[in-house]
Amino acid sequence: MFLVRKHYLSGISIMYVTHLYCSSCNSHYAPRRLHNLCNCGKPLLVAYDLDRAATTLTQEALRDRSPTLWRYAEVLPVNDPAHCVTLGEGMTPLLKADRLGQSLGLQHLYIKDEAQNPTASFKARGMTVAVSMAKELGVKTLAVPSAGNAAGALTAYAAKAGLEVYIFMPQDTPKANIIECQQMGAHVTLVDGLITDCGKIVAERKAAEGWFDVSTLKEPYRVEGKKTMGYELAEQLGWELPDVILYPTGGGTGLIGMWKAFDEMERLGWIGSQRPRMISVQAAGCAPIAQAFESGLTTGVEIINARTIASGLRVPKAIGDFMMLAILRQSGGTAIAVTDEALLAGVKLIGATEGIFAAPEGGACIPAITHLIEQEKLDRDERIVLFNTGSGLKYLEAFSD
Amino acid sequence: MFLVRKHYLSGISIMYVTHLYCSSCNSHYAPRRLHNLCNCGKPLLVAYDLDRAATTLTQEALRDRSPTLWRYAEVLPVNDPAHCVTLGEGMTPLLKADRLGQSLGLQHLYIKDEAQNPTASFKARGMTVAVSMAKELGVKTLAVPSAGNAAGALTAYAAKAGLEVYIFMPQDTPKANIIECQQMGAHVTLVDGLITDCGKIVAERKAAEGWFDVSTLKEPYRVEGKKTMGYELAEQLGWELPDVILYPTGGGTGLIGMWKAFDEMERLGWIGSQRPRMISVQAAGCAPIAQAFESGLTTGVEIINARTIASGLRVPKAIGDFMMLAILRQSGGTAIAVTDEALLAGVKLIGATEGIFAAPEGGACIPAITHLIEQEKLDRDERIVLFNTGSGLKYLEAFSD
Repeated sequence: MFLVRKHYLSGISIMYVTHLYCSSCNSHYAPRRLHNLCNCGKPLLVAYDLDRAATTLTQEALRDRSPTLWRYAEVLPVNDPAHCVTLGEGMTPLLKADRLGQSLGLQHLYIKDEAQNPTASFKARGMTVAVSMAKELGVKTLAVPSAGNAAGALTAYAAKAGLEVYIFMPQDTPKANIIECQQMGAHVTLVDGLITDCGKIVAERKAAEGWFDVSTLKEPYRVEGKKTMGYELAEQLGWELPDVILYPTGGGTGLIGMWKAFDEMERLGWIGSQRPRMISVQAAGCAPIAQAFESGLTTGVEIINARTIASGLRVPKAIGDFMMLAILRQSGGTAIAVTDEALLAGVKLIGATEGIFAAPEGGACIPAITHLIEQEKLDRDERIVLFNTGSGLKYLEAFSD
Repeated sequence: MFLVRKHYLSGISIMYVTHLYCSSCNSHYAPRRLHNLCNCGKPLLVAYDLDRAATTLTQEALRDRSPTLWRYAEVLPVNDPAHCVTLGEGMTPLLKADRLGQSLGLQHLYIKDEAQNPTASFKARGMTVAVSMAKELGVKTLAVPSAGNAAGALTAYAAKAGLEVYIFMPQDTPKANIIECQQMGAHVTLVDGLITDCGKIVAERKAAEGWFDVSTLKEPYRVEGKKTMGYELAEQLGWELPDVILYPTGGGTGLIGMWKAFDEMERLGWIGSQRPRMISVQAAGCAPIAQAFESGLTTGVEIINARTIASGLRVPKAIGDFMMLAILRQSGGTAIAVTDEALLAGVKLIGATEGIFAAPEGGACIPAITHLIEQEKLDRDERIVLFNTGSGLKYLEAFSD
């Protein structure tokens, strides 16, 4: 059934990509070539011929497809299924959280448990697609700056593909991330600085070293993998979307990806025009999106001295911030910053009521929900989905008691 | 689709259990009652009316069922689907390991990646069923001795069910196991001793405290959850079994469970009489099954001073040892002990070639394969499945370099 290599579309070209386009200036680029950013410096996104995709990608066809994100192959950019580098990622469970909901006073609360992905985080989704495309386009060596989980995921998929990887992480990245990369054969450099400093090193050295830069939104395909969270939510809820989505936001690829998926699904005729309110959850010590949202800005200001135990949220300046802010406003959502103390209490509440040892980033959704309830911005009977983006096992230092 | 609570059999009784029977003396016991061991002191197993089960449990029916182990509901003991305590466990990917196979000289090597279960180990399978049954039968408080991963899994499912949990683990259990239990609200006691010492504490105190003992094979349902690994292997391989299965063996519930599943599937008409050669993989510092197999014994002798970094293999005496030894011999398999040094090298090889950060127990399969090849006990073109029983993330202390 889902012996992964025995691909249900094996041998058939499944590539319906028409072109790439800039998320800011709308310049077009040809598919099937290596791209990083647009000439204007902003991220590129992938466009599909959805009419053609719809001829084989039907809700009925999905019945017989493997429970991985590659079930949506027609809206993913890989041309030859033989290039799919997969570890069984995606189609993570959407769990009804009745005990947690009860303790918060909510009737229809769900947790999308991304810890059940390979490498125990949602980063697997972006990297399975980015590495598959890198392989298809002939790349041999990859490099990435990472807060931790992206490094582990990139290392895993690169190892599976037989590609070389260079990882740059802040030196205070949780040990689990460092060890998993070392055990899977990556070249790991720990940097005295933040993820933005790591990104600068990759940018400076990549040309001379021959590295392909897989930084968040600096290549066009990680967001394509992340968007499958949006497809899965709809499929798991019987082709309806929830009323509210709480999403812990660092680089924000998932937020941008899900919004893109909703648009594609509407054009495929699978959903209507209604959208969830998108709630960006950040840490008080590094909340560029929440601050910009509050101030009415359309981009984020770089945070100085960014600090939070939720290392995935420690992104002082995100290249896709302008897209995130537009989505939050368009959806009628908001952005909320929570303290480390509150997000750690959130981890414990999720654990004790739902049996999920959540990442601190997932835990951050709990005080965010409390805040929304206090502000009367959530109805008790709305369908609310919170994302647990990874496993608490990757953050043992955060839980010292 | 697999919004887990929206059960496809919701409201229908799915219980085809006819009785429980002793694995040793064959005494019968009534279903739907709390049981631990047989009066003779040996484990109880569950018998089903497979003819009735076969009326709804068909290969065709499985097409529309959720990708969790509850897809095999008719051969699981829960009566009312509302009692299923699920976190989305099972149907883990079976990954073709071509790069690892190539480095070992094997053509058809597969890895069943159990790290993608809830709580990042195969222990989730047993505990989802055991806790569901405890809930169905009215238990309020559970207790377990554990080498680590069983504790995390029990804590998670008990939290989801709203039951109280007492955990007893050796004090040198990996920190990840201890922290996950604490974060999910278990009562954790660290014991200066081995898992057998922890088991004695539970046995001594359970009557006075009112605990239900969920020790490996001391209640009849964990093995029912574990057997689904056998069902999944067959389904994922197109209703064929592999030629060889390498299984890291501590308590051995999975080995016993899969063998039971093969028997049930033959009676369901899904497979023939052929069986894989079952290979038990143990650590040199604690190899009761390998030693007993070698010596022609039908039970294991208790290992004194058991030592290995692979904490899940540190089981000095397993209550189901007589079943394991019978299965190994009946299948034409064997048992192999490997050094800690060799199993840690195995973790690195799996990581670098397949992108899976394996548990030390999973890594132990690599030197076992090398040994079998040297002894000419494996053919290069056989279908070989190795089990990675959990994530390396749960054993960070083992990877200090």
